[in-house]
Amino acid sequence: MKKTIIVFSGDLDKAMAAFIIANGAAAMGDDVTMFFTFWGLNILRKPEKVPAKKSFLQAMFGSMMPRGATRLGLSKMNFGGMGAGMMKKVMKSRNVSSLPELMAIAREQGVKMVACTMSMDVMGFSEAELIDGLEFAGVATYLGEADEANVNLFI
Amino acid sequence: MKKTIIVFSGDLDKAMAAFIIANGAAAMGDDVTMFFTFWGLNILRKPEKVPAKKSFLQAMFGSMMPRGATRLGLSKMNFGGMGAGMMKKVMKSRNVSSLPELMAIAREQGVKMVACTMSMDVMGFSEAELIDGLEFAGVATYLGEADEANVNLFI
Amino acid sequence: MKKTIIVFSGDLDKAMAAFIIANGAAAMGDDVTMFFTFWGLNILRKPEKVPAKKSFLQAMFGSMMPRGATRLGLSKMNFGGMGAGMMKKVMKSRNVSSLPELMAIAREQGVKMVACTMSMDVMGFSEAELIDGLEFAGVATYLGEADEANVNLFI
Repeated sequence: MKKTIIVFSGDLDKAMAAFIIANGAAAMGDDVTMFFTFWGLNILRKPEKVPAKKSFLQAMFGSMMPRGATRLGLSKMNFGGMGAGMMKKVMKSRNVSSLPELMAIAREQGVKMVACTMSMDVMGFSEAELIDGLEFAGVATYLGEADEANVNLFI
Repeated sequence: MKKTIIVFSGDLDKAMAAFIIANGAAAMGDDVTMFFTFWGLNILRKPEKVPAKKSFLQAMFGSMMPRGATRLGLSKMNFGGMGAGMMKKVMKSRNVSSLPELMAIAREQGVKMVACTMSMDVMGFSEAELIDGLEFAGVATYLGEADEANVNLFI
Repeated sequence: MKKTIIVFSGDLDKAMAAFIIANGAAAMGDDVTMFFTFWGLNILRKPEKVPAKKSFLQAMFGSMMPRGATRLGLSKMNFGGMGAGMMKKVMKSRNVSSLPELMAIAREQGVKMVACTMSMDVMGFSEAELIDGLEFAGVATYLGEADEANVNLFI
């Protein structure tokens, strides 16, 4: 059965939870669609700066938000990134896949990753600023997929 | 098919996500019920102060929490409201409907908005302090609606 | 019909929402499974310190995170615990069950409480550090339960 996950959060811990669920479902043979919106788009940003036409405010938001999966903070106890760093260390020591690894697994398993075009327009993110292999769509597409799914989460 | 959304959060960004999903579903012909609880009740507060009998703590919570949809903050990067202000500006420049506009559309489209009576009792919110056109109910009503729905989100 | 709730958050307000929904559903005759992961594990910690073998980072995380349901903070307006204390007072004055009471009711009603073993391994929590009456499982178990459920929430 299909599963959908709206990834609204751009926090490392929540992003990892989303991908662990997505990958688990895909491994069990489910179709999985992840719909990245708002802060969740930060997970999909390329690590390098990509030239793009932005308004002043978009450029400011863009420069203040983390650029990609390796730079996300924790939703709690982040302490300016120190908490996220410690969490990554603990996870590595327990052989938990990192977020970039989880994302690579998702891709290999055919998890569909959709970037919300309305959020991209607001944040001023072009397709070129986001990682490859994404689809681009809006809320109607999400709802169409959710209608076919038996588990729909908002993270 | 019916959709339900529990709106637990009172953050501007999450409230907007909830209404964008609700309005999208309603536009596609779905019955939609939004169930506002805890901080989510702040979205429904009237902007003006309404005289009400409250305990000292309820009055204090009431005065510290935002009064209505125009005064909400962002869940991240709010910076004492500056982030929310900038986000509203960016959204307006991209022709995204504001939260009050999204709420008006929801109403026109017949989205059912339910305020959680248990949370109202805890927070000390009377019906008169909340906007018009709401229904008032508890968790049993939510569960009854969720049982009939095929998408149930907690935001 | 079955309901599942992923309890990712360790905040008092969100934990209460999760148990109020779970208990409501159980009272209506539903099978309910709560799956505690990441910060949500803090809800399940015993209040006393339990000797356990941990890495330095795990010990540090463990000592900085709240030990059990009576020590959780609010997701907003916590003010170093003062907000949570005030919220508990208000709730008590309105005859709302406390979180420990809600958890006892859940147990009596047969709500299944599952601790995520992967998160336990990362955080360094042994079974002995968590309250009694839990089951221990991973994401595959969650997905199996969610497939049988008609309401699946992520809190």
